[in-house]
Amino acid sequence: MNVAIYGYGNLGKGVEVSILNAKDISLFGVFTRRDPSTLTTLTGAKVYPASDLNLYKKDIDVLIICGGSATDLPTMTPALAKDFNVVDSFDTHAKIPNHFENVDKSAKENGKIALISAGWDPGMFSINRLYAEAILPNGKDYTFWGRGVSQGHSDAIRRIDGVLDAKQYTVPIDSALDSVRTGEEPNLTTREKHLRECYVVAKEGADLKRIENEIKTMPNYFADYDTTVTFITKEELDLNHSGIPHGGKVIRTGKTGINNENKHVIEYSLKLDSNPEFTANVLVAVARAIYKMSLRGEVGCKTIFDLAPSDLSSKTPEELRAGLL
Amino acid sequence: MNVAIYGYGNLGKGVEVSILNAKDISLFGVFTRRDPSTLTTLTGAKVYPASDLNLYKKDIDVLIICGGSATDLPTMTPALAKDFNVVDSFDTHAKIPNHFENVDKSAKENGKIALISAGWDPGMFSINRLYAEAILPNGKDYTFWGRGVSQGHSDAIRRIDGVLDAKQYTVPIDSALDSVRTGEEPNLTTREKHLRECYVVAKEGADLKRIENEIKTMPNYFADYDTTVTFITKEELDLNHSGIPHGGKVIRTGKTGINNENKHVIEYSLKLDSNPEFTANVLVAVARAIYKMSLRGEVGCKTIFDLAPSDLSSKTPEELRAGLL
Repeated sequence: MNVAIYGYGNLGKGVEVSILNAKDISLFGVFTRRDPSTLTTLTGAKVYPASDLNLYKKDIDVLIICGGSATDLPTMTPALAKDFNVVDSFDTHAKIPNHFENVDKSAKENGKIALISAGWDPGMFSINRLYAEAILPNGKDYTFWGRGVSQGHSDAIRRIDGVLDAKQYTVPIDSALDSVRTGEEPNLTTREKHLRECYVVAKEGADLKRIENEIKTMPNYFADYDTTVTFITKEELDLNHSGIPHGGKVIRTGKTGINNENKHVIEYSLKLDSNPEFTANVLVAVARAIYKMSLRGEVGCKTIFDLAPSDLSSKTPEELRAGLL
Repeated sequence: MNVAIYGYGNLGKGVEVSILNAKDISLFGVFTRRDPSTLTTLTGAKVYPASDLNLYKKDIDVLIICGGSATDLPTMTPALAKDFNVVDSFDTHAKIPNHFENVDKSAKENGKIALISAGWDPGMFSINRLYAEAILPNGKDYTFWGRGVSQGHSDAIRRIDGVLDAKQYTVPIDSALDSVRTGEEPNLTTREKHLRECYVVAKEGADLKRIENEIKTMPNYFADYDTTVTFITKEELDLNHSGIPHGGKVIRTGKTGINNENKHVIEYSLKLDSNPEFTANVLVAVARAIYKMSLRGEVGCKTIFDLAPSDLSSKTPEELRAGLL
């Protein structure tokens, strides 16, 4: 099975390294819209210009598209699904139905298969919401994110006048987690579920009080949360906040029994040192599934809800039943 | 969709109550090998003699077999798969490949579909082992059980001379959980992972020292574990140990990055007030999936690895993409 990577940022690099651990998958190469001669890949994978992609239609079984959800993927995935089986990590939840329709039309018209919105949320968190709801219909679920870096919130802080650099962590609140786990199905406000920790490098002489106030009152991003702002040096930021950790929890509690007398808690938790590398690993596993499905003649757009778990594994059904069931 | 229950113990009762929360499923009735007039069902479901089952082939879309794994299911599931789409919770891990072959042959020869080994382990724990291994191939997984009641170990204690009644709890050891979560991939012995707590009601005048010694040295069941034995009265046992709670955790840790520099922890955890009722809820959700697959013409034996998550849900693919992805 031959896979190619389209786009070589953090996610593309993660896919490249992940394929080293997939014995059944070969990496054909990396396609980039930049000048290929400016890229050095981590594993020595060959780099091609994106404009040459269609020369290699017959060499690539699945194309893993490593673009951004804001502007790249909405046009890129439907376009590439005309000529390739594709996988993406489109993560703008509200726009998934629209993206699905566009990709589905393009893939079906051209006899290709596509998988959108793989990763951990959307992705593994979504699967866990689905399984838990199907098993405990009489219940309620909660998703908590963090402790982890929110790129969007970090960017929003950097746009404030007087800010040189910043990193924002989303942090789930322990008391909220504890109350959910009791099974009492609490109604939690935005402020009760998460807090936001900001580490900010300010320009010399900048008005720190003003910056702190602008952050804490920023609508949509921070105003609805309890937010802490800590000013640090650029050196401290680079030393202590250079990683891209993330994670979170999906918890569903529900009741069974003729008098709803029994409570159950299902909790799925991720603690990730590298958000993009974990997402990349999910992309590689679902690319394997999409390839198997393409061999069975399946076409059109799929999501991770449509993939049988066994298709994600490199093991045979017999090995899975004997070893993991 | 019409479902029938075959066997009316704790599991069958759980299935009966679970179907109350499944708006897309009707309960046709309960089949029993006992005299039907001796059974009163929890929800008023009709009771039929097992010997009449074949009269209702056309009325039952999926038959949920609620028998025991030791002696019932190995013969019952292959036999019933000749005339019905069936679901079972066969949980003797080592014998799953053989059970699969028997059920697969029977179902395929008769154009039926069957699902074996649904529940939480095998079942939801298995799925989580599979997903986690597929995503983090460079890693290691651990399954912990409890805190919960082991029926087999409780029975083993009850067979000791001088014991009136007993309940055994399997308890995961916190320090083992902590060391696993560090991502250091420790090698843990049986004794380091779980301990066993026994609550025992002894006959008047019985030799408590001997009973305690017989429990702690019992091969296979207790000898490899640190075991505590607490003698209590029958009243205390009934008051504090009448439930059938269980649960556990599947944890996989793994590394990514060109130098394996990033660690990740995936943890799936269940905390169940009632082991049979939770298992019953899984059986109902997979029965729904099996029914959908039968409508698509699929036949033969399946496991939970072969089911697309969306098939377990009563929601449409559009609803799932918009609401849960």
